[in-house]
Amino acid sequence: MDYTGHLDTALQRLHDEGRYRTFIDIARTKDAFPRAVWTRPDGQKQDITVWCGNDYLGMGQHPVVLAAMHEALDATGAGSGGTRNISGTTVYHNALEEELADLHGKEAALLFTSAYIANDATLSTLPILFPGLHIISDALNHASMIQGIRHGNCPKHIFRHNDLTHLREILESLPADAPKVIAFESVYSMDGDFGPIEAICDLADAFGALTYIDEVHAVGMYGPRGAGVCEKLGLMDRIDIINGTLGKAFGVMGGYIAASAKMVDAVRSYAPGFIFTTSIPPAVAAGAAASVRHLKTDTARREAHQMGAKILKMRLKGLGLPIIDHGSHIVPVHVGDPVKCKMISDRLLSEHGIYVQPINFPTVPRGTERLRFTPSPVHTPEMISKLVHAMDDLWSHCALSRRELSA
Amino acid sequence: MDYTGHLDTALQRLHDEGRYRTFIDIARTKDAFPRAVWTRPDGQKQDITVWCGNDYLGMGQHPVVLAAMHEALDATGAGSGGTRNISGTTVYHNALEEELADLHGKEAALLFTSAYIANDATLSTLPILFPGLHIISDALNHASMIQGIRHGNCPKHIFRHNDLTHLREILESLPADAPKVIAFESVYSMDGDFGPIEAICDLADAFGALTYIDEVHAVGMYGPRGAGVCEKLGLMDRIDIINGTLGKAFGVMGGYIAASAKMVDAVRSYAPGFIFTTSIPPAVAAGAAASVRHLKTDTARREAHQMGAKILKMRLKGLGLPIIDHGSHIVPVHVGDPVKCKMISDRLLSEHGIYVQPINFPTVPRGTERLRFTPSPVHTPEMISKLVHAMDDLWSHCALSRRELSA
Repeated sequence: MDYTGHLDTALQRLHDEGRYRTFIDIARTKDAFPRAVWTRPDGQKQDITVWCGNDYLGMGQHPVVLAAMHEALDATGAGSGGTRNISGTTVYHNALEEELADLHGKEAALLFTSAYIANDATLSTLPILFPGLHIISDALNHASMIQGIRHGNCPKHIFRHNDLTHLREILESLPADAPKVIAFESVYSMDGDFGPIEAICDLADAFGALTYIDEVHAVGMYGPRGAGVCEKLGLMDRIDIINGTLGKAFGVMGGYIAASAKMVDAVRSYAPGFIFTTSIPPAVAAGAAASVRHLKTDTARREAHQMGAKILKMRLKGLGLPIIDHGSHIVPVHVGDPVKCKMISDRLLSEHGIYVQPINFPTVPRGTERLRFTPSPVHTPEMISKLVHAMDDLWSHCALSRRELSA
Repeated sequence: MDYTGHLDTALQRLHDEGRYRTFIDIARTKDAFPRAVWTRPDGQKQDITVWCGNDYLGMGQHPVVLAAMHEALDATGAGSGGTRNISGTTVYHNALEEELADLHGKEAALLFTSAYIANDATLSTLPILFPGLHIISDALNHASMIQGIRHGNCPKHIFRHNDLTHLREILESLPADAPKVIAFESVYSMDGDFGPIEAICDLADAFGALTYIDEVHAVGMYGPRGAGVCEKLGLMDRIDIINGTLGKAFGVMGGYIAASAKMVDAVRSYAPGFIFTTSIPPAVAAGAAASVRHLKTDTARREAHQMGAKILKMRLKGLGLPIIDHGSHIVPVHVGDPVKCKMISDRLLSEHGIYVQPINFPTVPRGTERLRFTPSPVHTPEMISKLVHAMDDLWSHCALSRRELSA
């Protein structure tokens, strides 16, 4: 059996399709983020600005977060030393879960090592809890939700992205007495568009379905206390299960769900992806709790974030670049060609010290390749200017089309 | 639809079967582990000794580990800020992967957020890389391996635990030209017994199968440099994929595989559980790398660990308690009844300040309920004596049988 030949074939396929990934080695500079140091493949170092990180608010370097982590390290050591069930539950884990439950106005919250696992474990466990369950899922849901739904092995139904008519048709076609969950996101990270949360909740009520929302690209950033888009719209109590991350706007690592005490208890008790894995280090839990707590009141940071995104979009639009703008904090620039997308990204990095990863298939559909910028409150006006000028030059150089300047 | 009723049913089932889990809230005391503070449900604090942690060597409080974590926190901040592909690969991640590849004598290693995910993601990806793959799996493999094999949706075959005759029968029954992987563990954590690694490698060679071994309960602890049982037996080069954890003997968090450069590159490129999740915090990677590096030379710690396990087993055997002893560092005491198992555990904790979680179904088969002690180099002779006396008392009190003292 030629196992190496099979590996060669699998890897060659990616090279042929232009979607072989090379990881860029970067070291963020604390207190100076989004500045970082890139170690080139030849070993040379170059100063760069990170324009594609998910530390949306710069909390990964916030003094309250770092102080909490140092303190927990000194108090309790490096790892938790066990699964949640076997010696790996600490005051830090419990305090963080309480902080998160409070954030979302829910009775309880449950920590996972990542939001990916939170989605996968929870969605795959729901069919065990609700025999006969149907899951109805938005077509553009994140890979982790798709994975969880597939792993749940229950009937699933995909509705066209944000298409309420299609969602209603599906709900109408299902047995009235069958348990149902509608799974969707509040902010879809690749286009930066919002889900029609209220209308989906209305349909859920009409058809007796539970609602499951992924707010990973919204928690910390939207709503008066940073609980996400559902909080901003006053809809938190209409969502049964909220999924969030501690690794993006909160700047640390880990994921969670927030829900009723019974729902959390049942997922906790039945999800193997929760039970059989070492819990996150106490220091990570402490840092995340400090970040969540801090962002409950730091409205100025949220406003600066939105303002940065508005300015960047306005300036890129001013050059006629094809921005996808749905009013969120995410700034995708449509390139539509994987080779050109990678070329612009490579030249931004090596010639301008601007790091933005090209987003190609399968993360987005072919023909919609893009650069996805994530401005933050710690990106300065000078950094924005530098980025805009670099994009202007490269766009011309790559002979990419511009929209009508009046658009 | 009565969703709450369904949750009640699911939870009641666990209560009825005596396997509803309550997490014990403990805070480890750095520099004093296995000492810790238990917060009782009523809020009162009690000093306890942890006897069921997986920080087998006490590395979670080792100064080199903590120093590396503090340093990385100060240099680079809290989180990585992205997935490995999008701004979340740092010098710390790369350095740790190099350290792990070197440890196992492999060309490359690949980090995951946990060994659970490493198993799940890798095993579920292998059928994509090797079309027509058959996976042959030991009956007592860990939940994460079972999950990964199930998620791979390829033909799977379970051989009776450590039964080479059965394994051979299965291999003989499969098409000679089909790709095959034999998946097994080096140390099975519930009984503490070893897999017959060399004989399995011989069968793999004879039938042209790949070998996949889970060494999570062995890395750091066995072999001259702590690479695990395969290193101890000189078999590392006969294993195609080694799975390990950074959350047990290495004392921090995270999981990995080590394999050929091509294998790692292919898993890296195709596994969604790897690509679409935030990478571990740089400080966690730095702490884990320091721990792995340190344990490559700290043979004394490994010897003290084995000695502690030998002494505890000898003393418990001396009381006639039914120890399961396969010569590993894990000390399971067979109780065989879920209620008594929990009762002994509860009383050890509240009356003696000794924390050992009862291990009941489904973690182990019904009728084999047990207490599973994990002595470490930082458990003192006094702690061992205290444990032995407490077990002696409770065993009599619960009217549990003893083996012949001469056994």
